[in-house]
Amino acid sequence: MESTTMPPRGEVRTDETDNLISADKVVGTTVYNRQGEHLGSVYSLMIDKLNGQVAYAIMSFGGFLGMGESYHPLPWKVLAYDTGLDGYVVDLDRSRLKAAPSYTPRNAPDWDTFGKSVDEYYGVPPV
Amino acid sequence: MESTTMPPRGEVRTDETDNLISADKVVGTTVYNRQGEHLGSVYSLMIDKLNGQVAYAIMSFGGFLGMGESYHPLPWKVLAYDTGLDGYVVDLDRSRLKAAPSYTPRNAPDWDTFGKSVDEYYGVPPV
Repeated sequence: MESTTMPPRGEVRTDETDNLISADKVVGTTVYNRQGEHLGSVYSLMIDKLNGQVAYAIMSFGGFLGMGESYHPLPWKVLAYDTGLDGYVVDLDRSRLKAAPSYTPRNAPDWDTFGKSVDEYYGVPPV
Repeated sequence: MESTTMPPRGEVRTDETDNLISADKVVGTTVYNRQGEHLGSVYSLMIDKLNGQVAYAIMSFGGFLGMGESYHPLPWKVLAYDTGLDGYVVDLDRSRLKAAPSYTPRNAPDWDTFGKSVDEYYGVPPV
């Protein structure tokens, strides 16, 4: 399972450093739970316009939870990157995730209120 | 020049609210200077892994400055969104931009030191 993100000697990474990563590279990254189960992948990022903070990573769970393609926003703070897994780890079991605020491509939320419900569900203060 | 980002009545925006915007939507947005001159557009975003802050918006200046495709990272803090222009405005004239830290697709930077030079050039404390 070990993987390395180091480039070959002499090459320089342009999309990631020790401290920085491009939005492009975050999108598509796999998300696991603490048990190492594959939950989904990052579909999009929602950024706070005012302070430039990534507020939510939108996870897509393509059919995995038995409900077709759906989007589960996770507060950025609940994501931890695991270099061994080469993905994000969240401390969520499937039932907690299943009950979390989510939407589908045909059922888009009003973010102004929806974001608040996401924060409350995960017990994270709004950014 | 006035434009509105409000959706038709009854529809809900999924990629932007008053406070949030998706990374996808930031990418591609036009950047102007205070004189209303078109400088370039947002090519990519670099995110601080630890705190989830957008550290840099990478502007692409396709040939505009007479040097072929080049990338100029701007600290997020120097960008201001103008709803009238439907783009970002930066307080930079072309000569200051031309002299700013930049790179080309064939000349990728080592971000660990490059980011610092960007912060220093624009007089912005590192995030």
